[in-house]
Amino acid sequence: MPHFVVTYEIFGNEARAIAEAIRVEQTIEFPNDLAAEWIQNEVVGEVLSITPTDTGMSLVSIAYDVRTTGYQLPQFLNVLWGNVSLFKGVRVRDLQLPRELATKFKGPRFGVIGLRKYFDTPTCPLMATAIKPMGTDSKGFAAIASTLARAGFDIIKDDHSLANQPWAPWRERVARVSDAVNKSNEQTGYKTVYAPSLNLPADEILRAAVEAKNLGAGALMMLPGVTGFDSMRSVADNDEVALPIMSHPAMLGSFVSNPTQGLSHGLLLGTIMRLAGADISVFPNFGGRFSFTAQECREITEASRNVLSELKPIWVSPAGGMTLEKIPEMRAFYGEDITLLIGGALHRGNLFENSRAMRRAIVD
Amino acid sequence: MPHFVVTYEIFGNEARAIAEAIRVEQTIEFPNDLAAEWIQNEVVGEVLSITPTDTGMSLVSIAYDVRTTGYQLPQFLNVLWGNVSLFKGVRVRDLQLPRELATKFKGPRFGVIGLRKYFDTPTCPLMATAIKPMGTDSKGFAAIASTLARAGFDIIKDDHSLANQPWAPWRERVARVSDAVNKSNEQTGYKTVYAPSLNLPADEILRAAVEAKNLGAGALMMLPGVTGFDSMRSVADNDEVALPIMSHPAMLGSFVSNPTQGLSHGLLLGTIMRLAGADISVFPNFGGRFSFTAQECREITEASRNVLSELKPIWVSPAGGMTLEKIPEMRAFYGEDITLLIGGALHRGNLFENSRAMRRAIVD
Repeated sequence: MPHFVVTYEIFGNEARAIAEAIRVEQTIEFPNDLAAEWIQNEVVGEVLSITPTDTGMSLVSIAYDVRTTGYQLPQFLNVLWGNVSLFKGVRVRDLQLPRELATKFKGPRFGVIGLRKYFDTPTCPLMATAIKPMGTDSKGFAAIASTLARAGFDIIKDDHSLANQPWAPWRERVARVSDAVNKSNEQTGYKTVYAPSLNLPADEILRAAVEAKNLGAGALMMLPGVTGFDSMRSVADNDEVALPIMSHPAMLGSFVSNPTQGLSHGLLLGTIMRLAGADISVFPNFGGRFSFTAQECREITEASRNVLSELKPIWVSPAGGMTLEKIPEMRAFYGEDITLLIGGALHRGNLFENSRAMRRAIVD
Repeated sequence: MPHFVVTYEIFGNEARAIAEAIRVEQTIEFPNDLAAEWIQNEVVGEVLSITPTDTGMSLVSIAYDVRTTGYQLPQFLNVLWGNVSLFKGVRVRDLQLPRELATKFKGPRFGVIGLRKYFDTPTCPLMATAIKPMGTDSKGFAAIASTLARAGFDIIKDDHSLANQPWAPWRERVARVSDAVNKSNEQTGYKTVYAPSLNLPADEILRAAVEAKNLGAGALMMLPGVTGFDSMRSVADNDEVALPIMSHPAMLGSFVSNPTQGLSHGLLLGTIMRLAGADISVFPNFGGRFSFTAQECREITEASRNVLSELKPIWVSPAGGMTLEKIPEMRAFYGEDITLLIGGALHRGNLFENSRAMRRAIVD
C-alpha cells in the first residue's frame, strides 16, 4: 500500500527516541512489541530518515500507510498532528502525499484558473474587501456593500467577526447584502460577489451554505480554525453549494507561531487549506499588524500553488492592515494570482473614491 | 448589556499598545476612530486593567459585550482567540463569563453527578480503557471489548486513532463492539458502555451519533481539536443522542504548549470543554509520555469543577501512558471524580487479569 511521508523538525538530543515514539503514537498508540507483526510492519509508521542539522534540530521523515487515515480528512489530520501536538519540540515541516491519498480529496472546486473564469479576470489580481464594522445593522451593511460593489470589487466578504449578532442577524444580513450587491451588478455590469461568513453552529453550516446561495451570495467565507477543517471540506464538496470558498486563519495562530512546535506555515495555510477545499487562503501579510515574516508568506504561497497531485492551485490573500500603497510591492512579491484584500483602510476618507483608487491600482 | 472578561498575559514592553490593538482586533477589526461613537463604546472591547508583573509579563483584562458573540460557541471562540491567535507574546490566562452568556450554553448533559447516576457509581472513580490497536478487525475489537467488559469497566472507548479505516470500518466496528459489550452486560450485570469515536466527516457526525446510539453505544468520544468544538456542542445538545461525551485532546497541543502564546490549560481543557458539552475531559497526565506539569493538570481540574454559572462540573481523565501503579497517586492528586483511563499497559500479560487488578485498585 502507498504511504504518505511527514517530515518533522525534532528539537533536542533525542531525535531517534522521539521519532520512535511518534511513529507509534500517531498510529496504534499501543506497546509496539505487543502488536501483531503485520501491524508493526504495516500500520505503525516507518522512520525513513533522521538527519541531524548543525542547529541541534533533526529532520525526521516518517512514512504512514494511507489506510491509517481511512481516506478522510479528520483522521488524516489526526495522523498528521493528533497526539504529537501534545509533544514539545516537534514541528511538522513538510508533507508528501501519494496520488492514492491526495486524489481522495476533491480539494478546491475552483482554484486559480476556476476563479479567473468565474470572475472573467484573465490576468490581474482579484480585488476583495470586507463589510465592517460589527455593530452596523443589516441595512447599513447593505449600503456599504452597495458602495463597494459600485466601485467594482470582485469579492465583498463579511468581516470575519460577523456571525449571527443581534445588530445584523445572519439571515437578514445575507439577504440584504446579497440583494444590494446583485442590484449594483445589474447597473454596473460588474460581477461582484458577496461572500457571507459561515461562522455558525456546526449543525447549521451546510444548510446555511445552501441558503446563502439561494439568497444570492456568490462565494462563501469559512473559518476552519473555529469550525474545523472538515466543515469547510464538506461545504466545498457539496454540489448543491458549488460556490468559491475563502478561508480565514482565525484561531489558527498557535499552530504556526512557535518556531519549535506546531505546523509549518506552508503546510497549514497552503497545503491543508487546499486539501480542505479553500479556493482563496487568507493569511496575515508580512509587514502588517501580525507576526508573519516574508519567508513564511513565501512558504504559504508555494504550498498554495505547487503540484499536489491533481488538486488545483489556489489563490493567496495576504491581508491584515493592508493599504493601497502596498499593492505594487505585493504584486511584485506574490505575482498576479493574488486576492488583494483591503478592509478598514478604505474607510478613511471617501469609501467609494478609495475603492476606485484600489481598482485603478489593480485593474486599470 | 453584560460583558465577559478575558485576562491575557502580554509579554514584552508594549502591553498597553497591544491591549488597545486586541480590544479592537477581536471585535470590529476597523480603525476605531472611524467607527460610530456608540460602536466604540458598546461593541469594541474595554480595557479594564493592565497589571505589570516583575517577570516582564503584564496581566491585561478586557471586557467584551456578550452581544459580540451572537450567543453562539463558534463566534464566542472567535472573540476569545480568533485573530489574536496570530499575535506573538499573548496568552489567555482566564475567562469570566456572566450568567447571561454562560446560560446560553447547555454545557455537559451529565457532568459529575449525572454520570455517577448513569453508572450507578456513587463514590469511587470511573474506570475506562480503549480498544486497540489500529489494524485489528471489528471481530477482533469485539473480542477485546468482551474481555474488557467482563472485567467490569465503566467505559470502553475507541482508541482515538480509530475512525473509518478499512481494517474495522466505523459502522461495522460500532455494531459489533456495542453488541459484544451489551451481551457481556447481560451476563455479568455490569453496566459497561462502549464509547465509539465520532472522528468522522463533518457532515456525518450528528447522524453517526444517533446511529451509534441505535447500534447500542452507551457513550461517545469526540475529538474537538479535529472536528471543531461546536461539533461536540451540537452532539451534546442533541436530545435524540443524549449520551455522555468524552472529549479527547488530539490536535489541541499547540494551543497550550507555548508558555508565552496560546490558551491556558485550564481554559482550553476545562472551561472550553465544559462549554462545548464534554462530560469527561481526557488530557495528558503529568509524569506520562506527554509534557503537561502537575500544576497544569491541577488548573484543568479546577476549571473542570469550579462554579461556572449553572454548567455542571465535569470529570477529568488524565491519561497517556498510565499504569496500575499510578492509581493511588492519581486518586490522591485528583480526588475521586476522576475517570481513570489505562490503555495499552493492560495488554502486557493477561488483559482480563490486568483489568481485574485495575478494578480491584479502584472499586473493591
